[in-house]
Order: sequence, then C-alpha cells, then structure tokens
Amino acid sequence: MADNHAPSTARNLTRRSILAGAAAGAAFPAVATAASSAPAAAPQAERTARASGKTHRITLYAEAIGDTLYGYGLAPGEATIPGPLLEMVEGDTMEITLVNTTDRRLSIHPHGVNYDVHSDGSPFNASAVEAGETRTYVWTTTGQRSGPGRMWLPGSAGYWHYHDHALGSDHGTEGIQKGLYGGLIVRRKGDVLPDKQFTIVFNDMTVNNKTAPDTPMFDAVLGERVEFIAIGHGNMEHTFHLHAHRWADNRTGMLEGPNDPSPVVDNKDLNPGNSFGFQVIAGDGVGPGAWMYHCHVQFHSDPMSGIFLVRNEDGSIPDHAQEAIDYFHGHHHGGHEGHEGHSG
Amino acid sequence: MADNHAPSTARNLTRRSILAGAAAGAAFPAVATAASSAPAAAPQAERTARASGKTHRITLYAEAIGDTLYGYGLAPGEATIPGPLLEMVEGDTMEITLVNTTDRRLSIHPHGVNYDVHSDGSPFNASAVEAGETRTYVWTTTGQRSGPGRMWLPGSAGYWHYHDHALGSDHGTEGIQKGLYGGLIVRRKGDVLPDKQFTIVFNDMTVNNKTAPDTPMFDAVLGERVEFIAIGHGNMEHTFHLHAHRWADNRTGMLEGPNDPSPVVDNKDLNPGNSFGFQVIAGDGVGPGAWMYHCHVQFHSDPMSGIFLVRNEDGSIPDHAQEAIDYFHGHHHGGHEGHEGHSG
Amino acid sequence: MADNHAPSTARNLTRRSILAGAAAGAAFPAVATAASSAPAAAPQAERTARASGKTHRITLYAEAIGDTLYGYGLAPGEATIPGPLLEMVEGDTMEITLVNTTDRRLSIHPHGVNYDVHSDGSPFNASAVEAGETRTYVWTTTGQRSGPGRMWLPGSAGYWHYHDHALGSDHGTEGIQKGLYGGLIVRRKGDVLPDKQFTIVFNDMTVNNKTAPDTPMFDAVLGERVEFIAIGHGNMEHTFHLHAHRWADNRTGMLEGPNDPSPVVDNKDLNPGNSFGFQVIAGDGVGPGAWMYHCHVQFHSDPMSGIFLVRNEDGSIPDHAQEAIDYFHGHHHGGHEGHEGHSG
Repeated sequence: MADNHAPSTARNLTRRSILAGAAAGAAFPAVATAASSAPAAAPQAERTARASGKTHRITLYAEAIGDTLYGYGLAPGEATIPGPLLEMVEGDTMEITLVNTTDRRLSIHPHGVNYDVHSDGSPFNASAVEAGETRTYVWTTTGQRSGPGRMWLPGSAGYWHYHDHALGSDHGTEGIQKGLYGGLIVRRKGDVLPDKQFTIVFNDMTVNNKTAPDTPMFDAVLGERVEFIAIGHGNMEHTFHLHAHRWADNRTGMLEGPNDPSPVVDNKDLNPGNSFGFQVIAGDGVGPGAWMYHCHVQFHSDPMSGIFLVRNEDGSIPDHAQEAIDYFHGHHHGGHEGHEGHSG
Repeated sequence: MADNHAPSTARNLTRRSILAGAAAGAAFPAVATAASSAPAAAPQAERTARASGKTHRITLYAEAIGDTLYGYGLAPGEATIPGPLLEMVEGDTMEITLVNTTDRRLSIHPHGVNYDVHSDGSPFNASAVEAGETRTYVWTTTGQRSGPGRMWLPGSAGYWHYHDHALGSDHGTEGIQKGLYGGLIVRRKGDVLPDKQFTIVFNDMTVNNKTAPDTPMFDAVLGERVEFIAIGHGNMEHTFHLHAHRWADNRTGMLEGPNDPSPVVDNKDLNPGNSFGFQVIAGDGVGPGAWMYHCHVQFHSDPMSGIFLVRNEDGSIPDHAQEAIDYFHGHHHGGHEGHEGHSG
Repeated sequence: MADNHAPSTARNLTRRSILAGAAAGAAFPAVATAASSAPAAAPQAERTARASGKTHRITLYAEAIGDTLYGYGLAPGEATIPGPLLEMVEGDTMEITLVNTTDRRLSIHPHGVNYDVHSDGSPFNASAVEAGETRTYVWTTTGQRSGPGRMWLPGSAGYWHYHDHALGSDHGTEGIQKGLYGGLIVRRKGDVLPDKQFTIVFNDMTVNNKTAPDTPMFDAVLGERVEFIAIGHGNMEHTFHLHAHRWADNRTGMLEGPNDPSPVVDNKDLNPGNSFGFQVIAGDGVGPGAWMYHCHVQFHSDPMSGIFLVRNEDGSIPDHAQEAIDYFHGHHHGGHEGHEGHSG
C-alpha cells in the first residue's frame, strides 16, 4: 500500500475536518475550548458536498496521552480524544498511514466504509500494528446503486466512526476505553455542509473521556448550521439528549421532503458501536443560551452532561448563558437551591 | 409571562386530552380504570387535527401523592401518574402555569417543542420553581420548513413527553422516579385523531409507577382507533411489547403510503428519555380479547406487564378475556399450571 | 383447528426455509457447519416473493436437547437452536401443530403476525401446551391497506421471530433462555429472495446459545445474496456489528429508491424481543475473507463473536481467511501477539 506521495491533495480535500481536528488538538481536551475562542462569522450561502472520486492520504499518529489515555492525531504530539474528524464523499478513497508511537499493539477499524481484510484493523485478520510500527489502511466508498426489483443497494454515506480494534484485547476494549476513537463522515454528493462540527462520544460513564464539569462545551453562534456526530462506546446503555433542538431520526437529521415519514427526536439511544449525526440551526426558534446536553439515563445524567453554548448573533455571550456556565462549573454536583429566581 | 386570561379557549382546544387526564385523575391510579368504566361509542367518521395557531393556557398543580409519590394535575387534589396528556398542533403555543404545592424544588421540562432558556425547567437555566411558588412556562411549536438543498427542517410534530428537571437533583432524578412525568403530543395538521389514548411509562421496574397486577388495564372496544404514547424513564433498558398488534416504526405508527420504507414492529426499545407513539385499530385481524403488554427484557416481564382489553363490539367482555383478567390478578407471580386447557 | 391434512402443500410453499432448518438440524449446532459443507452455486437470476394466500401446515416438535437445552424441530429428534426459520408471504396462513415431547409446560408465541387469543401462546390466555400434549396454533397475515387520511395501515411483512411463552414462567423466561426460539419472515409480494439465510440470536451472553469459538460460522460465496435474521433475547442490551458489510435501517435492509431517507448502518441495537433482518451481497466491494460479527458491547465482544466466511467465487477458502479461522479457534480468548505481520 502506498505511502503519502500526494499529501497536498489529501490536505485540500479533507481540510475542513482535518483542520478542525488539528485546532482541537492544539489544546487538549479542546474540541470545544478551541471552538469557543473563535466564533465563526455569519453563515455563508449553503455549501454542498461535491463528488471528486479522489484519494485522500493522511498520516495518523497513535500516541499515549499522559499515563492513562491514548489518542489519534494528525501530527506527532497532537493526539486528541476523540481523534480528528475524518470526512469523505461517496466515491472517495482514504489511505491512512497509522504510526504506532506507543509500546502496545493497536490498530484502526472503521465503520461504514469498504475495506479488504488487510485493512480490517483486527488481530483476527492480522491487520493490527505492533508497537513502534507503521501500517497503511485503505478505506473506499461507493454511492447507492439500483438493485434487483425495486430495491437499491445502500451507499457509504453516513455518520460513522473509527476506533482501535487491538489494544488490550482482540476487540480493542482497552484502546477504546482509553480514547482511541473518532468520527468519520461519508457524505452523499449534494449533502449540505455545516458551519461547525462537534464530535460527542459517550464512552462508559464519560463524554469524550471527560466527566462534568470538564466535559466539552460546544460553542456556536445563533443561526449557524451545527453538525453533531454522536458515537457510543464501552459497556453501558446511553441516551443522548440535547435541550431545545431536535432532528429527524434518519440519515441526515433533516427531512428528505414534506412526506418523509421519519420520526423527529431530541433523545436517542447511543449504545456501544452505534453512531448517528444530524445538523441543527443553533438556537433556531429558541434563541441564544447555554443549552444542556446529557445522557438521559438518570444515574449518568450528572457526570455525562455538558453545554451547547449558542451565542448572540454578534458573538457575545448572553448574561443568562454566562450565569448558567458559571453555575455548571461551580455547583454541578449538588442540588444547589439558590439559583432559581425567575418565578413568574 | 401571562396568566390564564383565556382559559376557555385553551380548554376547547386541548379538551379531549385534558378531559382524559382529568377523568383519570379522579380515581388515581385510574388511567385505565376510568376508561374501562365507560366504553366509547362506535368509532365516528375519521377526525383529523386542524391547525389553529392559538395559545393554550393551562395551570398544572405539582403535588405530593401520599408519602412517596408526586404528580402533576389540572386542578388541586387531582394529580395523577402519569400527569395529564397534553396536546398541541404545529403552530400552537402552550402557556403552563405550574403551581408547586410541595415543599421541594421542582419544574417542568418538555421534549420536542421550542422554549427559551427561561422555560427550560432546569436549575442550570434558573428555571425551576421553589417550594410553594408558581412559574409560567411557554412552549411553542412550528411546522416543517423547506431548507437548503433538498432538505427540510423538521417540525415539532411528535409523540413527546414532559417531566420534572429539578426535584432532588439538577436533572430531576428523584422527581421522575416518584412520578413527575406525562405525555405531550404535537400533531401535524391533517393527522388522524384517535378514539382513545393511553399513556404508558416504563420507569425503572414499573409501569406508570405501578407493578403487576396493579399496572393499568387499557380498555377499548373492537375497532376503536387507539393511540398509545410510550415513554421511558429512569436507569434501565426496556423494550415495549404489545401482543397481537403492530405499528410502523415512524412518526405516526402508520405508513405514509405504499412505499414507506419504515420497519413494522411490535416490540421497541423504550429507554430513558425516549418516547414514541402509534395508533392501532383495537383487535384488528385478531379479534377481541385480553392482550398482554409487557417489557420484553425477561427479568422485567413479570412486574412490568399489564392488559390491553379489547371488548366485543357491543362493549361486553368476552368470557376468555375475563378469565385472563382473573388469572392475571390471581396468579400472576407464579408459574400457574392449572389454566391451560384448550389443547388442540 | 385442523391438523396436517395437506402437508405436501405446506412443504412446497415453505420448503426453502424449512429445508434449511432441517439441514441445519442434522448436525446440531449446525446452521453454519451444514452450510459451509455445501457452498451454493453461482447466484441465479433474482427471484421474488409471490403471493399465494395459501395455508401452510407444519408440525413442530418441542424437545429437550441434552440435559440443559430445549429446541423446536420439524421432525422428532431434529430440534435445533434456533428452531427452523419459518417463512410466509403476506396473505398466507400458517397452522403449526406443536408437539410437546418434554415434561414441562411450553408454547409458541409469534411476533408480527395475527393470531386470536387461542393462539397467543401465553398461559395468561390459556394457550400453552402441557407436557406430552399437542396444540395447533394459527397465524395469519395481511398486506398493508389504505387507511384514513393519507395514512396506510401496516401489513405483516417483517423480519419477525417466535419463541416459547410458558416454560418456567408465564413469559417463558426459562424456555427462551434454554433455546426455544427461532426466526419468522413475512415477505411482501415482490420482495427479493436471498440465496442463503442465517439466523443469529443474541440471547444473554450467547449467540444461538453458544459462545466463541463455538458460535456459528456463516458461510457464503462471493456475490451471493445473503439474508441475516437477527433476534434479541434475554436480559441484556446488545448491539450487532458485522464487519465490512452495511445495510439500510428500514424494513428490508435495501433502499426503496434513491430518496429513501433511512440511515445506513453496520451496527444496530439488538435488545430483548427485538428483531431485524437485511440482505447483503457477500463480499461486495470488500472481497472474500473471514469477517467478524460480534456484539459491540465491549465486555460481550469476546464470547459473542463469530465468523461470516465469504469464499472465493469458485468456492475455495482464501488463505488469509483460513488463517483467521484458525486464529479464532486457537487463540480466541487471549491477546495473541504473534499474528500481526502485514505491516505496511
């Protein structure tokens, strides 16, 4: 399998996501922190995914993070949890050269895309990477195709994910538990592109391996098109709830048209190995504010909660949102009784 | 936020559900008991939801029920578990004045509808109600809208729910555990209205905070259009199974047309914070009888089971159904061996 | 209810599935073993389900298997776990004469199809079978029908299942735990028929009551249309993951057309009482190989894993697949370190 002989092409084609990942990586754990320091400009005219059929070549570095965690990063020393958000359009190929800088066997295994047995990422298929070694994995994608009868074969488009499948066990149980996971989006040509993207992983009793109040604060401006990529890992059942925003429970989170039969939800099962994604217009119909996200399994709801901050259109933070953020950081673990004042 | 200055309008527009809730409240725990004492007349011509765009104003009383439970009710002393079933049509607004008659902090938090931070119902957003106080919450709704590309933004229509978000913890864990929850339906204009409605909440190891044989018996007449609103709460995984009836796993439970790709199910995950609803024609294709509903997680299936009674068309109870009801009440917890007699 | 007075008709109409079941039964536990000894010929022109409206009459024998298990079989001594895969087309009727050869009360209860109270299979409805006795159950099916408004009533088509509802408790908890379950498919006229069918049941911490490395190996040839029927039972949450293959999360696993909004998945919740099915083209876009299936709940992933073998087009087994099979059988429970050699 080829190495990175056309890295600039790859960088161009996946730049948005990869840059997002790199920015986040600069200040671990910084997916939200990095974003909150740079509110986006007003939304642009809608952009949509274009088919290119090209091959994206990237290098991922699997690294230890401190004494207890591991992560994937796009450059040495930049590993994050979750790893960089990877993105393709149906028809694209991605070649990932995985550099294992750790002293443990590990790998990368994707969901949703095509790969042959040599890119499976499992010890079972002899496709893990030993300590200190390097291996290239190839993922391909395809569009939906007319099939027999009236049935079509599904394409690769989806909100997927990737994760270790070899550290500590043949299923990567320890690698996943310690942070070796990330989001993978495959878009269909014409899919609407977001202004911002947030990856949220419910991994046992954590969000992105953090617990409240250290969970990520996702930061957007009123009216921005925000994309959430939600991934479940570990051993426990979870349900992802986002306050004041809802989405269609289908491929994109938006309806295909006025007769799309999909349910609309604001709470969804997020169990191990599952993933879904959706786009919302930040604060649409509800205004700016600090909105909670949390696991709705009640005994998870304290440690597994965090903030989706929707700023005013000018990028400033509403007073009530700042109060909520302060409350979350100051009083999160108790039944604080002094914060309720707006009785009608 | 305004108080009930137009209660009669609100009563008219939400009367069906609210009356159902009030009737049930008269004899707690009486959702089924009340219904079973008054079998409906033969189904009428189909009625459908009409858009009004009006504001419904109601007052909810949060009360202690005995020493260990809490409930919401539409009048003092009428709290029920679940609380009254609330209903809107896309475009409607609901203003809920919540009177906290208890000595605990509590609130109301809805799923699916729009609300600003002051109506979030969370301590985090300073929108709970202290003991003895009153607060007005405003919920708004919207229809689906054409969006960018070929994508539509989902409207508010759905089988949603509301619950406490403040009693005992910042997530209302104790309030929910003790009964502060209810159903909330938002219909799309043109949606078919049911003849009867039953709210069923799997809340930890209970159904509507009851265990068999004290779980609700839902009572309908052969051919009636019956709407189930199913809600999950607490800490455990559940799967809701209804014998002899099935529904489409989509927004309404019915198919949008002959090419609707939705799966048809008779067993569905019902995990914390999730909700779904569907309509069935009572006894359609299977006849009158006492049909079980239960959680299909096997070690939940004894305590979390109950009866959906489908009467004969004339409102009488078939002999075999009465025998099953008696069996359920007399022998539920054992592996009774004397009731099997119809071997072929 | 009538006995088998037209068995030959029944055999013709359900022969494919019933023969598959019988073949598997010859060498318990042999769903995969039997299949792997007889790779299919190259796929034929597509076949589709035809409506017949006929009545299929079969006899099922419920039997003890060894000292700790039970199963259903189509002939004495041929019980399997799971039981025979039963198949209907919307409009068909199935009459099942259940012969209870055991010394325990048991029954058969279907999901998805229509039945009156006498065929419910529950002690609650007095429709179990005592030790040594026989009972006939009747299941009917219907197509989707135009309903009120724009809504259609769903038909019976689906990937369903059947199971005991009486052994050891009124919910058949012990019967299910010990193997009394099987798949039931109801097709819509025109649905595409598969080349091969595999039933996979996640039953507590087992796959078809087996744990790795004794779990079934599903065996197909590159390009075959393979149908999986996945069923959940017991007390635990599970998520079914299949490597290198994906399907639409809708009724059939294929898209109804290019605008079908269904998500595409390769990992799906499979909780107690739930079932789903899908068809994949074996090795499509990924080539032949030994592909893992497993529960993605991490602490289930070792015991609840197995192999989907995709042979070369000529029916031979690729070397890398044989190595993976050997690895699975020889080193499954450890973190074998000597099998990773193909570093890039």
